[in-house]
Amino acid sequence: MTRLSDIWRRSHYTNEIDENITGEDVTVMGWVHEIRDLGGIIFVLIRDRSGMIQLTAPSKEIEGELLDKIRKLRKESVIGLKGKVQESGKAPNGVEIIPSEIKVFCLANQPLPMDPTEKVKAEIDTRLDSRFIDLRKPVVSSIFKIKSKMLHTVRNFFEEGGFLEINTPKLVASATEGGTELFPITYFEKEAFLGQSPQLYKQMMMSAGFDKVYEIAQIFRAEEHDTLRHLNEAISIDMEASFMDDVDVMKILNDLVQKVIIDVKQNCKEELKTLEMDLDIPEGHFEVLKYDDAVDMINSKDVPMEWGEDLSRAAEKALGEIMDGYYFLTEWPTEIKPFYVMPNEKNPVKSHAFDLMYKDLEISSGAMRVHQHDLLREKIAEKGLNPDAFNGYLRAFEYGMPPHSGWGLGADRFNMTLTGLDNIRETVLFPRDRRRLTP
Amino acid sequence: MTRLSDIWRRSHYTNEIDENITGEDVTVMGWVHEIRDLGGIIFVLIRDRSGMIQLTAPSKEIEGELLDKIRKLRKESVIGLKGKVQESGKAPNGVEIIPSEIKVFCLANQPLPMDPTEKVKAEIDTRLDSRFIDLRKPVVSSIFKIKSKMLHTVRNFFEEGGFLEINTPKLVASATEGGTELFPITYFEKEAFLGQSPQLYKQMMMSAGFDKVYEIAQIFRAEEHDTLRHLNEAISIDMEASFMDDVDVMKILNDLVQKVIIDVKQNCKEELKTLEMDLDIPEGHFEVLKYDDAVDMINSKDVPMEWGEDLSRAAEKALGEIMDGYYFLTEWPTEIKPFYVMPNEKNPVKSHAFDLMYKDLEISSGAMRVHQHDLLREKIAEKGLNPDAFNGYLRAFEYGMPPHSGWGLGADRFNMTLTGLDNIRETVLFPRDRRRLTP
Repeated sequence: MTRLSDIWRRSHYTNEIDENITGEDVTVMGWVHEIRDLGGIIFVLIRDRSGMIQLTAPSKEIEGELLDKIRKLRKESVIGLKGKVQESGKAPNGVEIIPSEIKVFCLANQPLPMDPTEKVKAEIDTRLDSRFIDLRKPVVSSIFKIKSKMLHTVRNFFEEGGFLEINTPKLVASATEGGTELFPITYFEKEAFLGQSPQLYKQMMMSAGFDKVYEIAQIFRAEEHDTLRHLNEAISIDMEASFMDDVDVMKILNDLVQKVIIDVKQNCKEELKTLEMDLDIPEGHFEVLKYDDAVDMINSKDVPMEWGEDLSRAAEKALGEIMDGYYFLTEWPTEIKPFYVMPNEKNPVKSHAFDLMYKDLEISSGAMRVHQHDLLREKIAEKGLNPDAFNGYLRAFEYGMPPHSGWGLGADRFNMTLTGLDNIRETVLFPRDRRRLTP
Repeated sequence: MTRLSDIWRRSHYTNEIDENITGEDVTVMGWVHEIRDLGGIIFVLIRDRSGMIQLTAPSKEIEGELLDKIRKLRKESVIGLKGKVQESGKAPNGVEIIPSEIKVFCLANQPLPMDPTEKVKAEIDTRLDSRFIDLRKPVVSSIFKIKSKMLHTVRNFFEEGGFLEINTPKLVASATEGGTELFPITYFEKEAFLGQSPQLYKQMMMSAGFDKVYEIAQIFRAEEHDTLRHLNEAISIDMEASFMDDVDVMKILNDLVQKVIIDVKQNCKEELKTLEMDLDIPEGHFEVLKYDDAVDMINSKDVPMEWGEDLSRAAEKALGEIMDGYYFLTEWPTEIKPFYVMPNEKNPVKSHAFDLMYKDLEISSGAMRVHQHDLLREKIAEKGLNPDAFNGYLRAFEYGMPPHSGWGLGADRFNMTLTGLDNIRETVLFPRDRRRLTP
């Protein structure tokens, strides 16, 4: 088969080039980060995913055609460079490359739609409009390197714990759990919706005997939010386990969050440094705050809140001023939680639902679920929903449903706590909100 | 916090109970698979995710209330069982449990909507309608245990290869790559669509300098297929890498498929046995068949096909009769491949696109991509699409796009090759086709 002759193969990422390979011939591939043409000598900083390396071209030592090519480079062009590694006291990482050949794969147009060197700070909208350049900035790509690591650690945690990965459908018929607006789809002759969460499906997998399952996938909510913490498309980390109650799955969540923080701290040192983020590893059990006490604390901060209400943004903020780091909020009123949440058997006004908070940000919701068919049917009706619309789900409770519990953890919000970012849009490659559907 | 008193905690999965723990007290949780009441003695087979164990209740040794409870059990009810492990020559795995206490978590209704013991074979539609019971059959759950393992191996392969996991949006504005029908969504005041693939986004990530990326996520196609190989919602394993050509990424795909087969063969012995599947580990490079030669081979089987046509189902079948196992189909006509496929520089009628086939089933498509802005714009127009609708994508090619290549591998189809199944619906928990949107 013919190979494309104009593709060289990289011998080293830029961060693999150091004093140990002085004198060696290398091939690097990357973007032109900076050009300084001093006449007698030209310096070009070449950037790849791992870092940067300096090309040094002294006009006396380099043949004319090559020098000419280097001189004509433009910022952000993509090039391949062959050359010899040489020690240099002045170069950023102690070594530089004396070029023997360069190949220009893509000459970048000028002017650039935004500055990728971070010398000029851009607004979030400008950045998202030209995301492909924005992502070239180490301070931005670091967020996604951490996210990739986070997701990998989460999966390993589940695999080691004997969880099975499942894939549940995102195209669903009318009935979902309520509590949010859904996006309608034209599904051939029918109407369908985009799944707001895998909730009903992961519960059905308990009836199927899968015992412990997890899924990491997109969720879709048609809410008209315009906040720093909501998007209309997000990634949710979901688990569900049989023969466990809320306390069991809170322990799993606690362990998972700790493991991710340890792993990220250990494996993403460079990225955390770039983000100026100093991650604390939370020790032992996260603090557990009862809803009742939270209401008192919020009122103590002069934020009005009645028992039975959900947390307003002001209430979350008040709580965030008192509570630090990660903590559980438990014993929620049954009334304000979805129908599938198990009421407390001694005092059904309260429930076995919990949230995991990070300061003033809710990052996870979970609960022991109702596994009794008749109670579930009743609770669906109490919410003003039609139980018959849930028949496909309810049937799974009639023929052998074990007690079970689970939670959903917002991957993008969790990433906010690891990267110290306030705007969820920064932690998503191509965020979707009411105003933004492109790129 | 109050714990739900009626939840016991499992001490062992059923497959962990053997002669080594004779005499020990255990707690198992599971489904009543079978009841044989011989009057003087009752045998109950209890099933969990790992296998089965026999409860043996000799009426003389068991107190009356407990015996009564056991006698009233119904098939597929969910119970907890405490008891002592005892050796037994007659029990299925050489040991049985003499009960001291049982707890009924859910008494299953009778009759069951379908038979989970596989004594009666059900049609696929009946099975999917009661998927939560169908999935209790080892021959069905094995498919998903293999799928979970497959996905985990794929991710480890990418992680070890230095790929970054990305999450690209599934809600997209009008322009996608063409070639298929899309599902329209009402996105607030706008119209949007469900992504048919992450193609355009993973390419933009190359411009962003992410170098090597992968994503495993849902794809959506509004095609009116009614075949055993198509669904309207599927899981796609996607990768894209910079400074690589088609041959480089074919090598990656080849290595990945081999690694998955080795891992599944090693770790899913029980599941493969249940499915009566004997996996061969393909050695070295998969065979490479040029499109030109494929056309000749297909014609030799008396299936009419002209050069320049895509493979009809009959053509695939003819090919599947000649070719065995996995093989690449290469040098496709440029004309029938999407606009982003790189034409051969010496003979632009042919392209750098390839498919990975398994017998008569296409499981992956890939290519070296066009990375030159002007050529890409031209190719979009040649397909009868409006280049301006692709501006968000095309801009990423103007300011530093490296050469790159990639592929998408259908996870569900790949799973078919590992499990020996002919109908893709069997490899998806809750499949979506034109007629099916529930459960």
